Amino acid sequence: MTTSFEYNRLNKDDAAVLMVDHQAGLISLVQDYPPNEFKNNVLALADIAKFFNLPTILTTSFEQGPNGPIVPELKEMFPDAPYIARPGQINAWDNDDFVAAVKATGKKQLIIAGIVTDVCVAFVALSAIEAGFDVFVVTDASGTFDETVRAAAWERMSAAGVQLLNWFAVACELHRDWRNDIEGLGNLLSNHIPLYRGLMTSYFARAGQ
Amino acid sequence: MTTSFEYNRLNKDDAAVLMVDHQAGLISLVQDYPPNEFKNNVLALADIAKFFNLPTILTTSFEQGPNGPIVPELKEMFPDAPYIARPGQINAWDNDDFVAAVKATGKKQLIIAGIVTDVCVAFVALSAIEAGFDVFVVTDASGTFDETVRAAAWERMSAAGVQLLNWFAVACELHRDWRNDIEGLGNLLSNHIPLYRGLMTSYFARAGQ
Amino acid sequence: MTTSFEYNRLNKDDAAVLMVDHQAGLISLVQDYPPNEFKNNVLALADIAKFFNLPTILTTSFEQGPNGPIVPELKEMFPDAPYIARPGQINAWDNDDFVAAVKATGKKQLIIAGIVTDVCVAFVALSAIEAGFDVFVVTDASGTFDETVRAAAWERMSAAGVQLLNWFAVACELHRDWRNDIEGLGNLLSNHIPLYRGLMTSYFARAGQ
Amino acid sequence: MTTSFEYNRLNKDDAAVLMVDHQAGLISLVQDYPPNEFKNNVLALADIAKFFNLPTILTTSFEQGPNGPIVPELKEMFPDAPYIARPGQINAWDNDDFVAAVKATGKKQLIIAGIVTDVCVAFVALSAIEAGFDVFVVTDASGTFDETVRAAAWERMSAAGVQLLNWFAVACELHRDWRNDIEGLGNLLSNHIPLYRGLMTSYFARAGQ
Amino acid sequence: MTTSFEYNRLNKDDAAVLMVDHQAGLISLVQDYPPNEFKNNVLALADIAKFFNLPTILTTSFEQGPNGPIVPELKEMFPDAPYIARPGQINAWDNDDFVAAVKATGKKQLIIAGIVTDVCVAFVALSAIEAGFDVFVVTDASGTFDETVRAAAWERMSAAGVQLLNWFAVACELHRDWRNDIEGLGNLLSNHIPLYRGLMTSYFARAGQ
Amino acid sequence: MTTSFEYNRLNKDDAAVLMVDHQAGLISLVQDYPPNEFKNNVLALADIAKFFNLPTILTTSFEQGPNGPIVPELKEMFPDAPYIARPGQINAWDNDDFVAAVKATGKKQLIIAGIVTDVCVAFVALSAIEAGFDVFVVTDASGTFDETVRAAAWERMSAAGVQLLNWFAVACELHRDWRNDIEGLGNLLSNHIPLYRGLMTSYFARAGQ
Amino acid sequence: MTTSFEYNRLNKDDAAVLMVDHQAGLISLVQDYPPNEFKNNVLALADIAKFFNLPTILTTSFEQGPNGPIVPELKEMFPDAPYIARPGQINAWDNDDFVAAVKATGKKQLIIAGIVTDVCVAFVALSAIEAGFDVFVVTDASGTFDETVRAAAWERMSAAGVQLLNWFAVACELHRDWRNDIEGLGNLLSNHIPLYRGLMTSYFARAGQ
Amino acid sequence: MTTSFEYNRLNKDDAAVLMVDHQAGLISLVQDYPPNEFKNNVLALADIAKFFNLPTILTTSFEQGPNGPIVPELKEMFPDAPYIARPGQINAWDNDDFVAAVKATGKKQLIIAGIVTDVCVAFVALSAIEAGFDVFVVTDASGTFDETVRAAAWERMSAAGVQLLNWFAVACELHRDWRNDIEGLGNLLSNHIPLYRGLMTSYFARAGQ
Repeated sequence: MTTSFEYNRLNKDDAAVLMVDHQAGLISLVQDYPPNEFKNNVLALADIAKFFNLPTILTTSFEQGPNGPIVPELKEMFPDAPYIARPGQINAWDNDDFVAAVKATGKKQLIIAGIVTDVCVAFVALSAIEAGFDVFVVTDASGTFDETVRAAAWERMSAAGVQLLNWFAVACELHRDWRNDIEGLGNLLSNHIPLYRGLMTSYFARAGQ
Repeated sequence: MTTSFEYNRLNKDDAAVLMVDHQAGLISLVQDYPPNEFKNNVLALADIAKFFNLPTILTTSFEQGPNGPIVPELKEMFPDAPYIARPGQINAWDNDDFVAAVKATGKKQLIIAGIVTDVCVAFVALSAIEAGFDVFVVTDASGTFDETVRAAAWERMSAAGVQLLNWFAVACELHRDWRNDIEGLGNLLSNHIPLYRGLMTSYFARAGQ
Repeated sequence: MTTSFEYNRLNKDDAAVLMVDHQAGLISLVQDYPPNEFKNNVLALADIAKFFNLPTILTTSFEQGPNGPIVPELKEMFPDAPYIARPGQINAWDNDDFVAAVKATGKKQLIIAGIVTDVCVAFVALSAIEAGFDVFVVTDASGTFDETVRAAAWERMSAAGVQLLNWFAVACELHRDWRNDIEGLGNLLSNHIPLYRGLMTSYFARAGQ
Repeated sequence: MTTSFEYNRLNKDDAAVLMVDHQAGLISLVQDYPPNEFKNNVLALADIAKFFNLPTILTTSFEQGPNGPIVPELKEMFPDAPYIARPGQINAWDNDDFVAAVKATGKKQLIIAGIVTDVCVAFVALSAIEAGFDVFVVTDASGTFDETVRAAAWERMSAAGVQLLNWFAVACELHRDWRNDIEGLGNLLSNHIPLYRGLMTSYFARAGQ
Repeated sequence: MTTSFEYNRLNKDDAAVLMVDHQAGLISLVQDYPPNEFKNNVLALADIAKFFNLPTILTTSFEQGPNGPIVPELKEMFPDAPYIARPGQINAWDNDDFVAAVKATGKKQLIIAGIVTDVCVAFVALSAIEAGFDVFVVTDASGTFDETVRAAAWERMSAAGVQLLNWFAVACELHRDWRNDIEGLGNLLSNHIPLYRGLMTSYFARAGQ
Repeated sequence: MTTSFEYNRLNKDDAAVLMVDHQAGLISLVQDYPPNEFKNNVLALADIAKFFNLPTILTTSFEQGPNGPIVPELKEMFPDAPYIARPGQINAWDNDDFVAAVKATGKKQLIIAGIVTDVCVAFVALSAIEAGFDVFVVTDASGTFDETVRAAAWERMSAAGVQLLNWFAVACELHRDWRNDIEGLGNLLSNHIPLYRGLMTSYFARAGQ
Repeated sequence: MTTSFEYNRLNKDDAAVLMVDHQAGLISLVQDYPPNEFKNNVLALADIAKFFNLPTILTTSFEQGPNGPIVPELKEMFPDAPYIARPGQINAWDNDDFVAAVKATGKKQLIIAGIVTDVCVAFVALSAIEAGFDVFVVTDASGTFDETVRAAAWERMSAAGVQLLNWFAVACELHRDWRNDIEGLGNLLSNHIPLYRGLMTSYFARAGQ
Repeated sequence: MTTSFEYNRLNKDDAAVLMVDHQAGLISLVQDYPPNEFKNNVLALADIAKFFNLPTILTTSFEQGPNGPIVPELKEMFPDAPYIARPGQINAWDNDDFVAAVKATGKKQLIIAGIVTDVCVAFVALSAIEAGFDVFVVTDASGTFDETVRAAAWERMSAAGVQLLNWFAVACELHRDWRNDIEGLGNLLSNHIPLYRGLMTSYFARAGQ
């Protein structure tokens, strides 16, 4: 059963990041993660995109309406990223500009996160798989109404061949080796994992003695 | 592994809705969702069926006995829908009238919800898959004894090729584009997602200033 | 220890209802109840106030700002109720108009609910106790950030002599005897407790046979 | 602070049991215990009442309506107990026949359980405390809508001086000493605590070798 | 993907039941179900086996040692069933007598439950799948250390083609049609589902009026 | 309200430890803590008693029967401690030898833990409070059937003036100052708190460089 | 019972903040809050102390050892605050310098948070109550091993007259009226409550249109 | 669907154990198991490796930095095992020495555990599957940030053909038959399963009478 398995792992030279509908209004719908944990996860993924210089695409749905504008931090971090404010398509893959922007990156691996997991993320992920891309959904930078909804969305995506990873696994799979940039990865982890920050604080306090 | 995946997504022109055994007595068995959440989910799915004009079929099991009559709201919303009061078959697919009604819709995609998930829903879903239909079970408009029972039922259905979606994903996958009817979808969401209603209330309060 | 206990129970002739800061924006902060459960609880309390003709006072905090307008259902149900849009006081009891409105009811028992439990509810409740009122906080029509915050707020209020009741207990303690209005109470319960609605549906289906 | 504490413990010669509104319809409202656990707890309390020959009073609310008849097991176990089918009073203590039956027992300690905890149990318990009785509410033979409702009801009762005990503690506090009837208590525990039954099965299997 | 799915459903003429290691000592290891719920589930499955006259096989592991004797109820219910007290094999399928007993039933569908899920159940289930049987594991009549252990065991079995069903689904899938024996199935459900018993009690109380 | 509070804190010169019914059979009833956590908590309390040379009393209930013998570790750690194998009294305080042993310690502060919390612990604790002792129940070295039972038992004890502390708080309140024995307390914490052991391992690894 | 209640509420002119043992090593022991939620809570309390110019005292336990240095953010935010590195006292109130620093603030209300809740917080809180201070423990800026340990610590403190508040309630009770500094409080909430930030982002986006 | 399933079960003659990054610092990141449960699980797996004489390989990541040294117990138990302190590779399979050590064992079945599950375990497991090994991940001797992260990691590994087992299942699947060493397996279980120890204590107490 496992004879022909190929480990399709993230490669920083062949990956792009899609941030789908992280909007100020929609964020109030997210109840499957504690609020500050979710905020931290989204910003950690954004930091990963910056750290590895991955092409990044932002998209929003109806941002003039109740869904609200994109969360300001993302707009500030990626001022030059393709930004597709969709006029109506719920599945971003139904928007030609979005697909064109994805294809323009020339990357085969798509790292996707968004709000809400079962719609904005799942629809794009399934379409991208169908289109032949390798899809990695960042589980904890995607949020939805509750844990049961999330479980069904995961099941649907996993059955289609989507790989499910948390942002920490994304960072580590892209980095491969601490020696590629010890301080860079260390800072990223310290900023987003309080317990790791604690380890580093104690370590450097002693190292400095 | 993912090379040949085809995203079989809901299409409002090719979908029918099956409401299985949402009966006044059986509803007391549902303990895997808080009661008002479950009621809301079932009515949301009914509203979806109406909004997209999907052919809808109602069926009940032993409605003269302890299982009780169909919940009145469904009967009122679909006065002209095929209504199959099964004399004894537990699996609705074992009832010829029910299968005939399904086939009479001429649709290939079946959206199924019911009580209880592990029996009334799962049996129909597995039979329908076997009969060549594409089956989409609405996870949160289906209820059962507890979360562990639900998890096993999901596993069994998913292994057979059933797609598991919450009602919100069903609505969005059918609608495709907000511009098809902004107000219609907006109302539907506002009526069934209190947090979305909050967003809309604030939005229109300001828009009206 | 229990020798001198006096059961201070709700009396429909001596009770008023205070709805504090149920606003469209603030409602997105409530994460200690599932959204439709919370919406149902708030509307159930409003129905109780109407059913028993209890004087009811509405108040909001900063409704022109991010907190948003009062939830429309409450405004519609109580068009003639005193409505105090506070210009800045976080504790409604610090607003003279609000206290005057409370005192104008001439009632000694105050039934209080609001958003968020630990601030908008707790502050008013503690002030009202201090002012000599009997205070009954409606636990499930009040919401806040999470269950741990709620637990601490309950502890603080209970230690001060606040009585904690869910809306169902409020309705039953006010009603005293089904014979005062069987159909009225039955409808109220049927509208807000799906499982009770199920019991009634089965009952009347059989009674009608 | 603890200088004057008097341990008011259950005494089989001075205790009566009140079973309040364990009715076939109302039982469907109980969601704070798994169904078979709750059934077992109620029957365990009934067995305790029998085992210690405690005067026992049954009462129901509106048993001809949706609330349904008393659960048959209780009626069968206590064929000669006072049985007060209340015509309308929600608080059983508001029914003169019920209070008379309680007083007729001549006992000062009242062991109370019922459905639902926040109304049928709490109201009676608070009234009984006010009337000068010592009240022991059997926590796990009383059920209600969810754990949050239960927590508030416990808080209200505890603040009034009610003692909260599970049925196992009731049995042990009444029995005092195994030697009063080793086999009797052993059977009771074996019938209602599967893990204790396991211990006894293993024990006697070896003792019999 | 779903084109060739065959719904392999339980057939009372082609099914046997294997009860694996439900022993008085081992039962104390089960912590993934509340104790009375688990006891009820095991006895419900036993009643199903009796009701449908399914060949049933009992087996134990080291019953003279700490694992303890088989729970007495099972021994009493199946006095003539093959009973294989294994001298040491952990996987019952490694015991020739057990396999011979299974094959002697002449059935192709095996309904398996036991303690603990991850060992006594999973090992037999995987061996039976390998041997060409159709395997249905009764999820809630099998118990283990905690929910995380259970989840991994389910995943391992499901990946091998085992179907996971709760006892209620087993009963319903075997029965097919209420008309095969309305009273029989009704009694079975009434004895093991307190909420269903409540429905029946109310129903017959009214029917009898 | 708080004007006259006196902080009655643990004093190693005035405290005794009572270990009540930690027996091999009864331990299988404990389901409110994960098994290894509970085992660790009980042994941590035993280590505290040894470390501070506190007089310690062991007692058991019916140890020849299904309740089983005392857990061997406790017997080995306190070979010379008073050991009262009660012939039948459920409340150890009803046993004269036990009370005599407690009084013989000459201590006023009693640190109590046992199985199960709601009976073996609560009964002794309430009796000891009544007898004028200061009682400190070690919450996490006491176990019972489930968390709801525990919550009621805590409420009952707290209302009587019992102080509730986890073993870590007991150790720290007794020790007062690390300088009394840095290594001793460090070892105790390292042996029973894996995360603290991790801190110490990292610390000393670096200190040793 | 409630006749003489005085609402002792926080007053920014009479309050000081005590930050107890928020150290890099100890923070790894905190498991009763998700890590980023806890970090946010501690920093929110620190921001409150700054915003209201409350005298603030920092203290640590054994910071040269495994407990590790104070978390750097606190040291940076309060460079001039009294900083008491305790040489060994577990209860900071046993350290004369600490008590002197507290008294030097001249404040009667003490707002206390720390790690771990059951020791470093509870011991100080109980000592301060005994010394006649009004004590407000910030529940969510204090952390410990698990939720059960926290519950016992809350109970012990509440019984002694400690008031339990989350940081949001602390901020609101100190601020009293939004008009005292709308932008200041708004920024504080926006920085620490992601859902409130969402409300503000949407609000200002529209206000700016 | 199940026709060609081959039960690839653990074989003590063809299995090796890989312990990946169980380091004193990283252990503080593990929050998906209670601390003493996790510690027990890791040591149980180590005992299994010793008991069956399985070749065992230890590896660490950056042990001189914040991740900290390997937990001392593992180093002590396997003084002669290959020990690969990786200079930077996050995925141990990217380290040639590690892969060489694995291949040198000559075993085809790899039993893998480590910290954290989603990175240190999952990456190695996926690489090993790709390399043609049979991979068995020990679920409960592997830990990570929270249960949601764990669930995604399990899903990813299971989809690749990894088998997920708890340590108890590993022990039992390797042992096959109690008679291979009754006392040995008994001791192992007694040391790591407190409830099993209880069974054995009671058993031998009676056997010794």
